[in-house]
Amino acid sequence: MSFSRRRFVSGVAAALGYAGVAPTDLFGQAVAGQGAGRGARQPLDLTKIAKIDNNENPYGPPESVMQAMNSAWQWANRYGTPDGGLMDAITKLHGVKNENVILGAGSGEILDVVGTTFLIGGKKVLGVEPSYSQVYSHATSIKSEAIKHALNADYTQNIPNLIKTANERASEIGFVYLCNPNNPTGIIVPKDQVKQLLDGIPKDMPVLIDEAYHHFVDNPQYDTSIPYVLEGRPVIVARTFSKIAGLAAMRLGYGVAPAALVQKMRPFETGSQNVLVKFGGAASIADTAAQAKVKALNIEVRNKTVAELKAHGYEVLPSDANFFMVGIHKTVQEVSPEFRKRDVYVGRPFPPMNQHLRVSVGTADEMRRFMVAFKEIFPQSTTAGSKG
Amino acid sequence: MSFSRRRFVSGVAAALGYAGVAPTDLFGQAVAGQGAGRGARQPLDLTKIAKIDNNENPYGPPESVMQAMNSAWQWANRYGTPDGGLMDAITKLHGVKNENVILGAGSGEILDVVGTTFLIGGKKVLGVEPSYSQVYSHATSIKSEAIKHALNADYTQNIPNLIKTANERASEIGFVYLCNPNNPTGIIVPKDQVKQLLDGIPKDMPVLIDEAYHHFVDNPQYDTSIPYVLEGRPVIVARTFSKIAGLAAMRLGYGVAPAALVQKMRPFETGSQNVLVKFGGAASIADTAAQAKVKALNIEVRNKTVAELKAHGYEVLPSDANFFMVGIHKTVQEVSPEFRKRDVYVGRPFPPMNQHLRVSVGTADEMRRFMVAFKEIFPQSTTAGSKG
Repeated sequence: MSFSRRRFVSGVAAALGYAGVAPTDLFGQAVAGQGAGRGARQPLDLTKIAKIDNNENPYGPPESVMQAMNSAWQWANRYGTPDGGLMDAITKLHGVKNENVILGAGSGEILDVVGTTFLIGGKKVLGVEPSYSQVYSHATSIKSEAIKHALNADYTQNIPNLIKTANERASEIGFVYLCNPNNPTGIIVPKDQVKQLLDGIPKDMPVLIDEAYHHFVDNPQYDTSIPYVLEGRPVIVARTFSKIAGLAAMRLGYGVAPAALVQKMRPFETGSQNVLVKFGGAASIADTAAQAKVKALNIEVRNKTVAELKAHGYEVLPSDANFFMVGIHKTVQEVSPEFRKRDVYVGRPFPPMNQHLRVSVGTADEMRRFMVAFKEIFPQSTTAGSKG
Repeated sequence: MSFSRRRFVSGVAAALGYAGVAPTDLFGQAVAGQGAGRGARQPLDLTKIAKIDNNENPYGPPESVMQAMNSAWQWANRYGTPDGGLMDAITKLHGVKNENVILGAGSGEILDVVGTTFLIGGKKVLGVEPSYSQVYSHATSIKSEAIKHALNADYTQNIPNLIKTANERASEIGFVYLCNPNNPTGIIVPKDQVKQLLDGIPKDMPVLIDEAYHHFVDNPQYDTSIPYVLEGRPVIVARTFSKIAGLAAMRLGYGVAPAALVQKMRPFETGSQNVLVKFGGAASIADTAAQAKVKALNIEVRNKTVAELKAHGYEVLPSDANFFMVGIHKTVQEVSPEFRKRDVYVGRPFPPMNQHLRVSVGTADEMRRFMVAFKEIFPQSTTAGSKG
């Protein structure tokens, strides 16, 4: 055991050494999984299973990000450390100022902070169901409530309905939640409908627009809502490094909002993030080639899988994210153990869409294994049809 | 750029490579410092300065902790990852259950979460001044207030006074804050006085006992307050991996409290921590030898420095932490630039103790440089005397 500085500062030289370890050495050990949808402490062996349950980026952080993170070890024991250029990268990327940015442990912290800031004292959040449920469960946890509207028949978000309620029950509502693309459906809210929503609700009503899956979208109908922040509308856009950047367990995300809203949120933020992931986040923003590659791979693998499911006779919702939903004419609860028997971990149930299975887009190999399992569990169907 | 798993999983082999980089390669670059007490973005060159301003552990994490952290890279892109045994280690260490533990991004998050939980709606926090001011500033940020009592003439905390106010103004008070040892004085609250406080205040009044510096104490008069949690008293003990474990910028801490209090706090916690530091935290708890070595080094270096200051004629408060206060008969504001000119970064002012300088215990070399600077700035004194 050495206590000299030189022994603990990892540095770039070490970072460059990470390529030599075979995956079986690292993944061969059975470890305890604790995620949602799995029993706590159940052994989870990543060498064996196809893990397509949590919308993770199966490729992990690229080398540029690994190098950046490994260059920050020297700060591990310090306060007031550099951020690897993270705030500069975020503000330049969006054309905003520091006062418009709130960092968090993933965008999850941003969602919670918005909830606490705008709901405490009994206001309600308005949104659709199903959507990313953390927003609603957090509201419940602070003794608030969610006003949840059903999706349209085609599983898109019913914008006119949200506008109607936002106006009729304005005094009750703390903020509107819009997940775009929506989780678990993967379906976008077209940019003209986002504008329709923002124009149609009371002018001072905050809207939290969750763009966790922004980077996977390849659809001319979609656009980020950050320009609305620049216009000064009470919009908070949440972004994360958990998806495109492959840093879910490293915990980094941020919100972009008008300064006045950020100020309101500050008392409830943690206000400090792991130094390594801040360096990694900055590097991820800079490495647009790596982002493009993940995006292209995701689209390629997703489209192939979707085509195979449709050819097998099953309807798939039109996703622009790194996951999709397939109609299975059975409950997710029923079939999930069948997949698990085959070492394929699929998404949890998202009521009331109990007969749609959410499938995260894994590697090509994982999706091959998923399709083998799917065809064993589900017969070729002629009734469901394959549209699109 | 590679997207195969094997390229980003760092693993132990890489961790073991971190020893080869000379400090000048890593510390030679001037980087932006953003800590409290420095101007944001001011260049901060750790090869050049003695950084004894923020009560950091100058030795950084030991090899056992570095290895554990580097073994967790494989989880970087996942949710529901293993925790490296962290919760097991914490609960075993203290003889408590999972329901008694709340994790945070450093103990700072725990302090904020306690503040939000027990003050929101207008209740006040009761404590002494100076103490760790984040608790009071957070109270202000959520439109609450702090009732701050002066220290005794010998800079110890006035326990009878706290008890008196806790009873007289019980309905106003959300919780009592006790930092033990206190920051910035380094002085402990003796265990019999902690008991006196807990026995003397209303039985249901929460008490937040901040034991950030617990691991440095070597004083038979002191004891941890975790046994009061086991008794079921409304005590929340905050601990951190930022100090003894040298993981300040990695962000990990925790609170230990009765399950009912933890339940109340949960809605305001982030609820997710960086996976690397969770592995590191577990390893740190296990590596009692490393903790003992940091503790011993701190005491050795602190005692030597204190003796030199006393020999030079200056009074030093009796510290049991990894920092101490020296009476300088001038304001900290006046002399701080003098130290900085000599590349020695000392503590910020802690009003109303404006003529006491807080000095963190750095390495032996840093303290040697501090003493050189001190003797240049302050003449040998005969008036202050050297007691003890």
